[in-house]
Amino acid sequence: MTARFYAPAAERAGEVIDLPSDEAAHLTRVLRLKTGAAVRVFNGRGREFDGVVDAVSKKLVRVRIDGTCEVTAAEPRVSVILAQAVLKGDKMDEVIKDTVMMGATAIQPIVTTRTEVMLAALQRGRRRERWERIAVTAAKQCGRATVPGILEPRPFTDLIEALGHAALPAPALMLVEPSASDGAFSLGELAGSPPREVTLVIGPEGGWTPEELDLGSSTCRLVTLGTRTLRADATPVIALAALFAIWKEY
Amino acid sequence: MTARFYAPAAERAGEVIDLPSDEAAHLTRVLRLKTGAAVRVFNGRGREFDGVVDAVSKKLVRVRIDGTCEVTAAEPRVSVILAQAVLKGDKMDEVIKDTVMMGATAIQPIVTTRTEVMLAALQRGRRRERWERIAVTAAKQCGRATVPGILEPRPFTDLIEALGHAALPAPALMLVEPSASDGAFSLGELAGSPPREVTLVIGPEGGWTPEELDLGSSTCRLVTLGTRTLRADATPVIALAALFAIWKEY
Repeated sequence: MTARFYAPAAERAGEVIDLPSDEAAHLTRVLRLKTGAAVRVFNGRGREFDGVVDAVSKKLVRVRIDGTCEVTAAEPRVSVILAQAVLKGDKMDEVIKDTVMMGATAIQPIVTTRTEVMLAALQRGRRRERWERIAVTAAKQCGRATVPGILEPRPFTDLIEALGHAALPAPALMLVEPSASDGAFSLGELAGSPPREVTLVIGPEGGWTPEELDLGSSTCRLVTLGTRTLRADATPVIALAALFAIWKEY
Repeated sequence: MTARFYAPAAERAGEVIDLPSDEAAHLTRVLRLKTGAAVRVFNGRGREFDGVVDAVSKKLVRVRIDGTCEVTAAEPRVSVILAQAVLKGDKMDEVIKDTVMMGATAIQPIVTTRTEVMLAALQRGRRRERWERIAVTAAKQCGRATVPGILEPRPFTDLIEALGHAALPAPALMLVEPSASDGAFSLGELAGSPPREVTLVIGPEGGWTPEELDLGSSTCRLVTLGTRTLRADATPVIALAALFAIWKEY
């Protein structure tokens, strides 16, 4: 299989573009490709091209774009924006990797009352940049030509306010744990024609506070994944898979 | 919430039973419960009881069973037996933990051509015993009163033969990666009334060989999860979630 690289500069056939430095390093040091090698590049905005390595130097890899090619892995028909409470340690990395590979459209990290990481610590630690790199790698691995955006982390309360004030509100689902599921919808009740876009809001290890459930229910539909308790870091993968299945993405 | 313990000896109200040593250690050393504490015990075969700690000594915890109580988390209506190729390192541990918490009925570890672990190494390393302990812990955490069986690891070819020779063959699904999905069914085509029991066969990191696909298709329906490549250790969780969603378990 021809190796694929992320090249945000790729726009049209005939151009000669530079690969980003991470991608150049991957091409030269890991795959050891030389001038003349056939490659594929995708621009992260849904387009993929056949190309040829035009020049390789210590710091730079130049690719000549020959023509558009079919994208390896299609985008899902439903856009799911995953609004995920930041999880402990590096568990968020795994969630981003897997949900990007599955087909999430964007990731909105959120900070809730029981999130154990502060917004300021996320900024200091350049976590968003790290997650952006993970999203690129995941898109490369799964065959998508689109790199999902990692949005600026924000408080849960801000997200709910923004959802309530959107000019064209898209549906939003807030997942609640089994112990808080009184009155919540089961996911199966969402079957039928899928929305164009949906925001899926998922809490941290410690779950939602009663105040958050109350606030969330003002703009989101509360949904459950049944009575069995799930691990916080498996939950977004399970919820996204269930939504895609219900909306006939699989 | 009352603490729950696994007590395979628990059968009926009025009995006084000993907890297994792992559970006794959890009760005394982690939760530091004393004689007279209210507990719940489940027997791993679907029954759960209210009880009281009757005696605590260094090595032994005795529980008096007061009466049957409602099971915290119900069993799924569809029995899914996950036949999973053993994954590298401790990735299989995570798969077992999450699929047990989700509601798998049993786990059948299998060894395929591209599995990087040998059956003999699994036996030497007492991996099955380890996975059984993980299944108990996962059942405790998720609220199930049933502990799914971890079947003796076997070669993929044996499993396929057994599926073909069953007196009452249950449906079997074999998941194929996007690159091998020509002619496979999409999971959504399975919607409709769920079977009572199904075996879901999932391959290792390196995928199936052409010979395995050929053999598997003799007794299994080949199914895909779309065009995006997924991580091997996320695949069983995604596939089980999708099946449960399609069969209205969520």
